[in-house]
Amino acid sequence: MRVGVLGARGKVGAEVCAAVEAADDMELVAAVDQGDPIEALVDGGAQVVVDFTHPDVVMDNLEFCVDHGIHAVVGTTGFDQNRLDILGNWLVKSPATGVLIAPNFSIGAILMMRFSALAAPFYESVEIIELHHPNKADAPSGTARRTAELIAAARREAGSAPIPDATSTSLDGARGAVVDGIHVHGLRIRGLVAHQEVVLGGVGETLTIRHDSLDRVSFTPGVLTGVRQIGAHPGLTVGLEHFLDL
Amino acid sequence: MRVGVLGARGKVGAEVCAAVEAADDMELVAAVDQGDPIEALVDGGAQVVVDFTHPDVVMDNLEFCVDHGIHAVVGTTGFDQNRLDILGNWLVKSPATGVLIAPNFSIGAILMMRFSALAAPFYESVEIIELHHPNKADAPSGTARRTAELIAAARREAGSAPIPDATSTSLDGARGAVVDGIHVHGLRIRGLVAHQEVVLGGVGETLTIRHDSLDRVSFTPGVLTGVRQIGAHPGLTVGLEHFLDL
Amino acid sequence: MRVGVLGARGKVGAEVCAAVEAADDMELVAAVDQGDPIEALVDGGAQVVVDFTHPDVVMDNLEFCVDHGIHAVVGTTGFDQNRLDILGNWLVKSPATGVLIAPNFSIGAILMMRFSALAAPFYESVEIIELHHPNKADAPSGTARRTAELIAAARREAGSAPIPDATSTSLDGARGAVVDGIHVHGLRIRGLVAHQEVVLGGVGETLTIRHDSLDRVSFTPGVLTGVRQIGAHPGLTVGLEHFLDL
Amino acid sequence: MRVGVLGARGKVGAEVCAAVEAADDMELVAAVDQGDPIEALVDGGAQVVVDFTHPDVVMDNLEFCVDHGIHAVVGTTGFDQNRLDILGNWLVKSPATGVLIAPNFSIGAILMMRFSALAAPFYESVEIIELHHPNKADAPSGTARRTAELIAAARREAGSAPIPDATSTSLDGARGAVVDGIHVHGLRIRGLVAHQEVVLGGVGETLTIRHDSLDRVSFTPGVLTGVRQIGAHPGLTVGLEHFLDL
Repeated sequence: MRVGVLGARGKVGAEVCAAVEAADDMELVAAVDQGDPIEALVDGGAQVVVDFTHPDVVMDNLEFCVDHGIHAVVGTTGFDQNRLDILGNWLVKSPATGVLIAPNFSIGAILMMRFSALAAPFYESVEIIELHHPNKADAPSGTARRTAELIAAARREAGSAPIPDATSTSLDGARGAVVDGIHVHGLRIRGLVAHQEVVLGGVGETLTIRHDSLDRVSFTPGVLTGVRQIGAHPGLTVGLEHFLDL
Repeated sequence: MRVGVLGARGKVGAEVCAAVEAADDMELVAAVDQGDPIEALVDGGAQVVVDFTHPDVVMDNLEFCVDHGIHAVVGTTGFDQNRLDILGNWLVKSPATGVLIAPNFSIGAILMMRFSALAAPFYESVEIIELHHPNKADAPSGTARRTAELIAAARREAGSAPIPDATSTSLDGARGAVVDGIHVHGLRIRGLVAHQEVVLGGVGETLTIRHDSLDRVSFTPGVLTGVRQIGAHPGLTVGLEHFLDL
Repeated sequence: MRVGVLGARGKVGAEVCAAVEAADDMELVAAVDQGDPIEALVDGGAQVVVDFTHPDVVMDNLEFCVDHGIHAVVGTTGFDQNRLDILGNWLVKSPATGVLIAPNFSIGAILMMRFSALAAPFYESVEIIELHHPNKADAPSGTARRTAELIAAARREAGSAPIPDATSTSLDGARGAVVDGIHVHGLRIRGLVAHQEVVLGGVGETLTIRHDSLDRVSFTPGVLTGVRQIGAHPGLTVGLEHFLDL
Repeated sequence: MRVGVLGARGKVGAEVCAAVEAADDMELVAAVDQGDPIEALVDGGAQVVVDFTHPDVVMDNLEFCVDHGIHAVVGTTGFDQNRLDILGNWLVKSPATGVLIAPNFSIGAILMMRFSALAAPFYESVEIIELHHPNKADAPSGTARRTAELIAAARREAGSAPIPDATSTSLDGARGAVVDGIHVHGLRIRGLVAHQEVVLGGVGETLTIRHDSLDRVSFTPGVLTGVRQIGAHPGLTVGLEHFLDL
């Protein structure tokens, strides 16, 4: 599999280049960054491109890729419905080409969210604990909010009963924040990176699903999964979870 | 939903009766044990029967249920292929009736096994830790062995690479037992009941799925799930996992 | 060691009787409850009495014990400074006798609190998670509040720097309750009993101390420890931690 | 506090230099490596030296420090009894000077070992789980072995009963390795760094002490603790635990 990387000298792009080179089934045929000619992708015969660039340039990059029938796996941010519509139109003219737009390449985070939503209707109780380094500005984390929304949706669809809670006297904040009916607790601890635990409970038993991200390179297996799967998924896909066959 | 219980005065059956009575959507219409007439099921208008009796009587019980078009949720042990074949033949004559034979009604254990097998192909490493009270005679536990087999099968099907392990000097047993290529570690600790943790890891991240059974009544939600779902699953089903829609 | 139990037919007292009978180094010589003559303690030759009775009768019980030189291990509640002063005066007249008043006999809870306070000055960050069944009325738990106070006191004494926290945008409650400067998070989950985790973190590492109480009988080892140690601790002691030699 | 670093351009030494510069109460006055004159320590007025060099040069370095009354905090390996005796003799002539030889600067690991040994006599059961990256050559880890030895010694001293274990049928290795009577389980998982969990259990409760080392810089707080405390500990000290006042 011949792979090109756009944004190859950025922090994330450099990690992607290293991961592609280390993969037995891939060859890095073009490492392109600001100032480099994008035609290097074609010259190198790239079948798939990974784009970690900037919202200002990613649409031009993708137009070039779709025009040349090169699949694209995209971690660059800034995609609204308008951009997705434009992409969809381009892809109509190149129906064999696939583009994956993914806000999150952490397979562990995706699995944690998916399993939590699958399990939630079988349990009376569910709460979320997220733990991060103390330099983080927002609480709870975006992943915790998203997990709460997915769990709440799954419970609504299943017609789950309200979660039991007899708390009658409480210090402010003791029971956490409430996101879509789900209690979420955020810890900020020096030494941690990014961690989340979903605790589900029923009569006499609990199920705990925990994701620990210990190093920022944890996104690379997700990117490689995207690269390997994109050829089998022509058209536009939003979210790596659609490639994981869960 | 009108429910009858066979083996109603046994330890497990008594818990089932209590759980049925506590459920808003169920009514306990017959509690039958040794010496009671099984016709009480028909007199009470039972739609579903739960059977926690004995291998010696369970086949007679099920013949009666199928004959009368009563669905059955069965926790009694001792079903071999021969018994399953006989059951299947009976059900041919009563095609709207469902029978569920389940060796394990713990929803948490089922979810843990299922999620572990789903996740395993996405990770380089996976090991199992099971923790039980120190009166347990066998190590590792049956659930841990079964989990290892399911994980190994999922990895084989996905063509996963061998699990990395550079251990070159080791004390006997330090790396656990190996079940179908998966390392399994068994702890025996006073105060614990039955617990299992599956640890999966890839570059920079880990996913941990943990099931804690803190009380033996943890099987009742699984039995109630069986009772609620059996009407929608005519014929013979082996394993509660087929009702969980995962 | 000859042991008497006051409140022997109460829920807790009955567990204490069973634990004393099961201990190799103890003999249950008197099991006294409402209506029984307290003199049975003397008749049986009790060396130590365990009292789980009621605030209305415990002072009379203890006066009898001290008068007869019988050591007492007391789990009954309702001791204010006035009662402790009275007890102290009685003990002056019987200097070889020991009385232990303990609000908490869980050795695990005591160790968790002690270790957390010892460790806290060595770490930049520390937060508390407590997890209980959903029928609990108060949040956070009394043990979590007490742990927070002990940690805060230890950090003050050590002159620890403020705990880092860059949170600038937050949902209400996301960062938990704040007890004496320590963030405390309370979860309520069906299936759980009483659990607490203290997470401490510094550059590149964390230390986690977790106590799981899975069954209400977990107080019995603490009571037996009190019985075994009371003879070596004449006078009045408040808190089992003073017998643990930490 | 004026601090010098020997081995300042090595991987570890460079981290130490950065940590000293980041500490409010310290000043880095000399960063010395191979080829640099050691007199820079005196010129800079160093009060304390940190040595992460090599067994071949560390004794010369320490002789220089002791001669000049500079305290030393030493992470360099290779100290046998003979070297410790020589050091002791030098220190006789400079009684106000302190030297700390520490094989392990991780405060978390030291606390975990200490707390485990303190707690072990109060519990019937105790086992150790250590989890590391899969490139590690030995199993169990040195820290796990040392923890087992400390726990076993504490239990022997307290006269603890044998640990209960009814295992009668077992797969090879299922119950882990046995170090000094303590069961130890080693996991090797991609994505992990260095982690250890000690699980203690008694009737109805468990206590778990877990240390997670997520980044190799986790030794720097221990080094800084050594630097801050060495002035108050003249003479020779082996092991950072003696400075932690536990």
